[in-house]
Amino acid sequence: MQKAFQDYYPDQLSYCYGCGRLNQHGLQIKSYWDGDEAVCVYQPRPYHTAIPGYVYGGLIASLIDCHSTGTASAAAYRAAGREMDSLPALRFLTASLHVDYLRPTPIDASLEVRASVKEIKGRKVTITSTLIANGEICARGEVITVQMPDHLAT
Amino acid sequence: MQKAFQDYYPDQLSYCYGCGRLNQHGLQIKSYWDGDEAVCVYQPRPYHTAIPGYVYGGLIASLIDCHSTGTASAAAYRAAGREMDSLPALRFLTASLHVDYLRPTPIDASLEVRASVKEIKGRKVTITSTLIANGEICARGEVITVQMPDHLAT
Repeated sequence: MQKAFQDYYPDQLSYCYGCGRLNQHGLQIKSYWDGDEAVCVYQPRPYHTAIPGYVYGGLIASLIDCHSTGTASAAAYRAAGREMDSLPALRFLTASLHVDYLRPTPIDASLEVRASVKEIKGRKVTITSTLIANGEICARGEVITVQMPDHLAT
Repeated sequence: MQKAFQDYYPDQLSYCYGCGRLNQHGLQIKSYWDGDEAVCVYQPRPYHTAIPGYVYGGLIASLIDCHSTGTASAAAYRAAGREMDSLPALRFLTASLHVDYLRPTPIDASLEVRASVKEIKGRKVTITSTLIANGEICARGEVITVQMPDHLAT
């Protein structure tokens, strides 16, 4: 079974509300490579609503945020030809987040976020993504991530 | 006691995860006028963490999102010289969300989001905001909102 990007994060970086495997209150999203794209699938809870029947935009922003920082990490390892469990760790923080909401996202659908690496430049990695529900693109994201300072990343 | 913008939303629009007063799992944020700015204060929960000690970026995006749609609604009523409980209702959805994360946001601080109306143009209202913790600006937001179709807003 394929290990998710987030499963390589060390314990002390695994309490993120969006993607930390040790945050019992959080979303615990998981990201995987699918060729050159990274994919995350999430089933919204019934209470993740905006207007009745549709997903809360803040949840969509959260999925795009964590999936993008995870993809940035995996991409940096891939670019360096390194395994994700090798040290020093390459972890990323969000510098900016942009989401365009193209149409209401149905809350009973499974949400798929597909991310691509737009640019790797020094410690900065830019990720673009689409959020898909029932085969339709409902949102687009662009996230600029920066590599975490080494003293925080280990 | 001043009533929050969100307390004027009709029941069926009060289940939003970010700001719905009837969503028991949600953040239940509250927004108020402070002169020409709108203010929202939120105390993050201990589990709203990113890296240890700091607030999750998706929570910051959520606060900026809902505070901005609430401010757009209040600004539209104010521009029309109408009370917020008058019909037809003026409610707003997020078309795009942009957040710049300027520095890590401490999780033990009370977070204040201050929003200003940048532009009102037809059914579109653009809101800019800053998120402040311990007197420092930690994030900046810009949200483009559009007025909800009438059949959803009542």
